[in-house]
Amino acid sequence: MRYIVGLDLGGTNLRIGLFDYKIQLLNKRILSTPDFRDKDSLIEIMVQSIKEIIKDNSIKERNTLGIGVGLPGPLDYKRQLVYFLPNIKGWHNVFLGKILKERIGINTIIDNDANLICLAEYYIGLARKYSNLVCITLGTGVGGGLIIENRLYRGTNSLAGEIGHIPITQDGPYCGCGKKGCLESYIGNQRIIRQAKKIFKKNITLEELSRLARLNDIRAIKIWKSVGEKLGTVLAGVINLLNPEAVVIAGGVSKAGKVLFDSIKETIKERAMPIQAKQVKILNSRLKDNAGITGAALLVKMEARNVNFYRFS
Amino acid sequence: MRYIVGLDLGGTNLRIGLFDYKIQLLNKRILSTPDFRDKDSLIEIMVQSIKEIIKDNSIKERNTLGIGVGLPGPLDYKRQLVYFLPNIKGWHNVFLGKILKERIGINTIIDNDANLICLAEYYIGLARKYSNLVCITLGTGVGGGLIIENRLYRGTNSLAGEIGHIPITQDGPYCGCGKKGCLESYIGNQRIIRQAKKIFKKNITLEELSRLARLNDIRAIKIWKSVGEKLGTVLAGVINLLNPEAVVIAGGVSKAGKVLFDSIKETIKERAMPIQAKQVKILNSRLKDNAGITGAALLVKMEARNVNFYRFS
Repeated sequence: MRYIVGLDLGGTNLRIGLFDYKIQLLNKRILSTPDFRDKDSLIEIMVQSIKEIIKDNSIKERNTLGIGVGLPGPLDYKRQLVYFLPNIKGWHNVFLGKILKERIGINTIIDNDANLICLAEYYIGLARKYSNLVCITLGTGVGGGLIIENRLYRGTNSLAGEIGHIPITQDGPYCGCGKKGCLESYIGNQRIIRQAKKIFKKNITLEELSRLARLNDIRAIKIWKSVGEKLGTVLAGVINLLNPEAVVIAGGVSKAGKVLFDSIKETIKERAMPIQAKQVKILNSRLKDNAGITGAALLVKMEARNVNFYRFS
Repeated sequence: MRYIVGLDLGGTNLRIGLFDYKIQLLNKRILSTPDFRDKDSLIEIMVQSIKEIIKDNSIKERNTLGIGVGLPGPLDYKRQLVYFLPNIKGWHNVFLGKILKERIGINTIIDNDANLICLAEYYIGLARKYSNLVCITLGTGVGGGLIIENRLYRGTNSLAGEIGHIPITQDGPYCGCGKKGCLESYIGNQRIIRQAKKIFKKNITLEELSRLARLNDIRAIKIWKSVGEKLGTVLAGVINLLNPEAVVIAGGVSKAGKVLFDSIKETIKERAMPIQAKQVKILNSRLKDNAGITGAALLVKMEARNVNFYRFS
């Protein structure tokens, strides 16, 4: 039996999971990303945590098939190079896979976190029966992944899936990416929190905002409805373009639940073309917080079969 | 040597081309679509024209590999069923391929015209070296086709590629599809002509509007710039989503030339993410008016290799 380690680095948490070859989660660790101030200390804690989770579970390193890492930013999959991480400082042109392999001695492969969440939902989540799938993660940023005819589609520079940067209007506010009117500039979690603060005249967390909506607070419902309308409008365009069987919505913001999903579904029905709108299923992620580490482990299992393809050796 | 007939039905013209097996155009006919008032007379003239072009070129029917037909509307490729044609009345749930085969005795296959233009540009147009390609046709409607990893991507219900129905704003005018704020509701040729009429206080054709722009008429330039900005904004989203190598722009409206293309390119540079924007080539169709019939002939050649797959027999 062989084991796989899956990492999921986010702006808030670093998650590390130990999986068996059937991608069953055996053990999990969660660390707080901001506790590690610079790139080097973040890499150091990755190395230690990986070594620890292997050791603590009495596994031999030679029985570990590989390490998969999901990262919240643009990267070159073919070269296994992180371009930068918009929400974590100090990461520019880092060959993270190579570094981890050198430090730990186990094959390592990296990918964009939204791609990995998409893989996880496609292979073992709710979307197993679908061939054409759009996956969207709602958090600090708005990421996306695409399954096209049963394969993860990465695009020409492995940058496909940037649903968060589809313009929703011809003008609009500036986005973190430097452009105008992107979906993310309206529904990134910081934007929602800022809007809530304006309306409630105090700091309010997303969890609180979701709770208030469940208690029928009109102001909270209005905020979530507006998030759903913006996301639904962009998804209507994506659905008209790709005619997928399903859209899976994951990430922290998606925990808002029914009020958000109802608004998304209603908007899609109103804005997408009839046959496409009728076809598509809008699903809530089943794997939740484990989606990223699960996808990372799955990627290792998949790529281990193509040993030479991405110099995964 | 075997021959192929390619048809391209548009709201304005019906084109019929005779091709050899290397997809060289040997002979071509153009008819005016509105001359044939209903579905039956349009089918009748298709049958006659196909028979004539074969006969006039002294070809035996048994040397004709097949007939390909491009249609300007949604259809079910697997069932070879035309749902309807938004700009040609009287077509609802028509098994056109079956009808033509029964009338002529030659295998016939139908597809959406934008898909066929995409195939033509990918196989023998300017986009031959690209694996991921977006093709957009600007005419009465705004159609689109997608090549994903060297294959035409049709989507779950063969309705993928509807770039014309990506919303450009949360509100906006009603579109022919019944929804709001679609790209097509801003840049379909009738909308451009209507806008020009308002500004010039007289009827003005697209050809005239293009000529005026070339003569530096500020009003004409402004109209084309605005078309380019709207199209460019939507394409920026498509480029961020699909990270393609190239976008080919075809169809009557694209004949406006430099003023339109400059505006599209500028908007993409301004709105799409940097790496994706730098990567993508914006190309003017090379096959022009022959793109549709060429793609139809190509489809016959391709599908003839999968005889049983789509009951193409």
